[in-house]
Amino acid sequence: MSDCIFCKIVEKQIPAAIVYEDDDILVFMDIGPIIKGHALVISKQHYETVAETPDSVVAKLHVTAKRIADAQLNGLAADGVNILQNNGKASGQEVSHIHVHVIPRFDEDGHHWNWKPRKYENSEEMMELACKMQKQL
Amino acid sequence: MSDCIFCKIVEKQIPAAIVYEDDDILVFMDIGPIIKGHALVISKQHYETVAETPDSVVAKLHVTAKRIADAQLNGLAADGVNILQNNGKASGQEVSHIHVHVIPRFDEDGHHWNWKPRKYENSEEMMELACKMQKQL
Repeated sequence: MSDCIFCKIVEKQIPAAIVYEDDDILVFMDIGPIIKGHALVISKQHYETVAETPDSVVAKLHVTAKRIADAQLNGLAADGVNILQNNGKASGQEVSHIHVHVIPRFDEDGHHWNWKPRKYENSEEMMELACKMQKQL
Repeated sequence: MSDCIFCKIVEKQIPAAIVYEDDDILVFMDIGPIIKGHALVISKQHYETVAETPDSVVAKLHVTAKRIADAQLNGLAADGVNILQNNGKASGQEVSHIHVHVIPRFDEDGHHWNWKPRKYENSEEMMELACKMQKQL
């Protein structure tokens, strides 16, 4: 897409620190890393969110993300890795071109994901949501 | 593994609100949801992190996560979805059995992921980390 910054990176109209490239996938460094070493795995083809992305591309994005996670563990001596893919503005997606964040994590790196579990009123409330999802499968 | 809570859910020794099941994959509701509707996609086979998980299983976990994301968008009227997979204690992984969080998001749901980008000292610092990762690929 002509106004998409990630498409421009794919087309080499905008420079990026490229880590890996093949016919379908591009991996480059996030210039605003949560933790230094943070990389983005994208499809070269433009899809906005996972919902529009073919299964084969979803699979390839995440198998590549695994390789990048391995490279962070072995090449950067990371202690752990977050693999995160946001879909839609409500989720925090900032660029509307599917991308998988691969973030190296280190003991005592000072980052904490605001992980605040909520509570269901009762098990019926949880089951009702599970049933609504099941009906779509 | 005998002491793994997710293996016990797979073996039906511990109850869970199951959304989907096949020969390889189980999807059930997270009882401590970030947002109500939060589901977990796991492999039935025990693997600790993505590093030990075969590519075919990584692919199937994420193609299933896509289906669950679709079910949240269409069945729960979610506005967006976070798909998150943590590896290792340093990343926030709490159960040492690979699992993909699929979290429905709603405009004004009040959740914010503590997204605080850091800055590289200069482009050389970023390139050095990119090169260290490239050497592992």
